[in-house]
Amino acid sequence: MASVPLITKEQAGETARAVFEDIMQTRKVDDVNNFWKALANSPELLQQVWSQVQQTMRPGALDALTKELIYVAVSTVNNCAYCVHSHTAAAKAKGMTAEQHAELLAVIALASQTNALANSMQVPVDEQFKV
Amino acid sequence: MASVPLITKEQAGETARAVFEDIMQTRKVDDVNNFWKALANSPELLQQVWSQVQQTMRPGALDALTKELIYVAVSTVNNCAYCVHSHTAAAKAKGMTAEQHAELLAVIALASQTNALANSMQVPVDEQFKV
Amino acid sequence: MASVPLITKEQAGETARAVFEDIMQTRKVDDVNNFWKALANSPELLQQVWSQVQQTMRPGALDALTKELIYVAVSTVNNCAYCVHSHTAAAKAKGMTAEQHAELLAVIALASQTNALANSMQVPVDEQFKV
Amino acid sequence: MASVPLITKEQAGETARAVFEDIMQTRKVDDVNNFWKALANSPELLQQVWSQVQQTMRPGALDALTKELIYVAVSTVNNCAYCVHSHTAAAKAKGMTAEQHAELLAVIALASQTNALANSMQVPVDEQFKV
Amino acid sequence: MASVPLITKEQAGETARAVFEDIMQTRKVDDVNNFWKALANSPELLQQVWSQVQQTMRPGALDALTKELIYVAVSTVNNCAYCVHSHTAAAKAKGMTAEQHAELLAVIALASQTNALANSMQVPVDEQFKV
Amino acid sequence: MASVPLITKEQAGETARAVFEDIMQTRKVDDVNNFWKALANSPELLQQVWSQVQQTMRPGALDALTKELIYVAVSTVNNCAYCVHSHTAAAKAKGMTAEQHAELLAVIALASQTNALANSMQVPVDEQFKV
Repeated sequence: MASVPLITKEQAGETARAVFEDIMQTRKVDDVNNFWKALANSPELLQQVWSQVQQTMRPGALDALTKELIYVAVSTVNNCAYCVHSHTAAAKAKGMTAEQHAELLAVIALASQTNALANSMQVPVDEQFKV
Repeated sequence: MASVPLITKEQAGETARAVFEDIMQTRKVDDVNNFWKALANSPELLQQVWSQVQQTMRPGALDALTKELIYVAVSTVNNCAYCVHSHTAAAKAKGMTAEQHAELLAVIALASQTNALANSMQVPVDEQFKV
Repeated sequence: MASVPLITKEQAGETARAVFEDIMQTRKVDDVNNFWKALANSPELLQQVWSQVQQTMRPGALDALTKELIYVAVSTVNNCAYCVHSHTAAAKAKGMTAEQHAELLAVIALASQTNALANSMQVPVDEQFKV
Repeated sequence: MASVPLITKEQAGETARAVFEDIMQTRKVDDVNNFWKALANSPELLQQVWSQVQQTMRPGALDALTKELIYVAVSTVNNCAYCVHSHTAAAKAKGMTAEQHAELLAVIALASQTNALANSMQVPVDEQFKV
Repeated sequence: MASVPLITKEQAGETARAVFEDIMQTRKVDDVNNFWKALANSPELLQQVWSQVQQTMRPGALDALTKELIYVAVSTVNNCAYCVHSHTAAAKAKGMTAEQHAELLAVIALASQTNALANSMQVPVDEQFKV
Repeated sequence: MASVPLITKEQAGETARAVFEDIMQTRKVDDVNNFWKALANSPELLQQVWSQVQQTMRPGALDALTKELIYVAVSTVNNCAYCVHSHTAAAKAKGMTAEQHAELLAVIALASQTNALANSMQVPVDEQFKV
């Protein structure tokens, strides 16, 4: 049902397979998710995205769970069903509790509501908010 | 430049003024932001939104800063200029460091990129992500 | 500040000027709005859009004001600042009261909120909603 | 296929069950839709959303059908499949005719088109549209 | 699973059937796609959209394949699953190679990323970019 | 008016300045645009984005102008005002004619319209479009 074929690890060329191996080792899993199988149609892009994921999502000034919550929020507004599912699962794997999930949903809901209101009323930015 | 008049505290009717007072007291400020002045055209909506903001944004299972980061992420994707400005300022007021801001931007950028890729390739959701 | 030059009625070529004349006559105004001046860079597109506006926005099974309310709602979610301004003005010109505007905003806010919730929870469509 | 479990009325806790009962009584139905079952993971949010739905969607300065049409328009642009299905069904239940549905679609299509054009040409807002 | 019934060529009224015939003849196919069957609920809109598709998508200053690539890009960001599928198929039918598809995806991904960054940082437009 | 300070080449630290130099040399200009000055608050992100821009936007299976057209289309739908301005300018610099711009706008407008229609009618994907 994808608009590109999903490339399995058996079908992947050298570049793609190397990335697959790295993903499986890093995540300690036996196979890669459909996102990577789809992306393997573009081995260079697969490499670039995987590299960026590792660099961006590792704990830093923000911890790993906070980053996943932000990821779910962005994916919700862009309405990427795949990403909402996979990053909600990732957030749970990183320890998101049911209470935290409920509060994440509440903030997304509130922000979406006030975004729509501010855009509909075209509220001018207050001077003190400008850098 | 708004598409509704901004109602000042002097112009506000009883219901709106009471909400304005509550906002100013809670936030220890002398005036309310333009968002509230615009919303004061609909006193009932003003009340409901302010009540929801207080209930949703208070620290709970997620701390106050994490909630602001999520708010900025949602506002970015909905491209609400007003909300990006006001909630970036709020995040800074709640202690967001330059490093945290940089990582917030990096996660938003990465998620927007992979959202677009997953949507463009219409990747089917893996079985293990389904509840 | 547009990304295309605005074409005035003096500068417009034959096709564009004819559309400008029709707009001014139909709306009983002395000049056309910036949207049409920008669109005049593409006279064919100008013609097509103006023709579609007239056909679509005339009262039919839905009255003219209801159509403007829907237009404002769509423009809000697409965050078209120009369109929110011009169609809010158009709705007022067609009789939208302050109470109706407040309720329009409330429905847009509620829908944006529940849209975000349903997308974030990826709620499956109930059988009875499927045609 | 949701990213949260659906809570049935048998599984719901006290708060959620009370909201479920209210929904079923108000709407004279035997069960609640999936949206509410998903939202029941967050009983407070369930309460708040149901309360806001009742307050916002009751006939006022705008009639109930007009509000549903606006809801469908917002849900379309946010591309909430669940919401488009459920609110199209709600609009039909409130009397939307096939002709009205066709005109709703035509306005949504036109507005989406001109929104894209105005955003792509970055048309500056005319002075007369500014409040 | 649509929110409107799909009208087959046997069920179509005179206006819709004439458009169906034109589509089938122009595209040398035996049946029309679901999009047209859904749109046939609004024969006037069906006529208008088909006419606009023919006028807009024919080769001109931009060739037919370039137009399809743009169509896929727009459909991705609007997250229209139907449109991504149908226009990716159309692009392939017009000669899009796997390499071109990979580069299309890479540009969509990059643009989505920098769009999010510019919106999140609310970067002011440089003077030299203003017409 | 940005939500982050703009870092000039005089203010930039070592990493950011090196990227600035590379941009200025590559593009044969005396200064970098505001986007890069804003991004310089996150030197690592600045490096990553500039590297990705160079890799993605160089002519390949798609020529440089086609890539800019796709960039403008994506930026329009994400409604990134900065990006629409800068990439429309870039497309002109790479040879986009007024006729090509007009056709780009027409395709964006048509796609936005049919995206909205397909999403509003929730048209199911035809079997032949599934890979």
